[in-house]
Amino acid sequence: MGLFDYFKRKGEPTSATVAKDRLQIIVAHERSQRQRPNYVAQMQEEIIAVIRKYVNVDKDAVSIAIDNADDCTILELNVTLPDK
Amino acid sequence: MGLFDYFKRKGEPTSATVAKDRLQIIVAHERSQRQRPNYVAQMQEEIIAVIRKYVNVDKDAVSIAIDNADDCTILELNVTLPDK
Repeated sequence: MGLFDYFKRKGEPTSATVAKDRLQIIVAHERSQRQRPNYVAQMQEEIIAVIRKYVNVDKDAVSIAIDNADDCTILELNVTLPDK
Repeated sequence: MGLFDYFKRKGEPTSATVAKDRLQIIVAHERSQRQRPNYVAQMQEEIIAVIRKYVNVDKDAVSIAIDNADDCTILELNVTLPDK
């Protein structure tokens, strides 16, 4: 299953969700060697700042999840966009 | 299947891929109404600029795919990071 299918399948709106505009940003960093620098955590704030240039987003409208494995860090930002 | 599983499963290195550091960024914008502005295309360059602050990335090391459906736009950036 490709990533586009993942979002489309996930995006099937239920009645509750259809009214909301949402922005989901995923940053996955696969490191070939463990001691390589982990950019993801540092980029997180700057990526949110880019979003804020386009949309007026409250702090609590952004949910952040970060998962660290040995060789892979995944950052997931979910932003509920304002109605107007 | 959650998105983290998606990346981990996708990330299983074959011998050819294990040497490469990679950064994958996905931006998915789900719009409740079609005429809502499409931020994704505009954010694309600025997100690449954020990456370039942390990593010296050549233009041809960044592959960009964008898919537009009626209510969903998905941007996928794949960046092969330099070895050193």
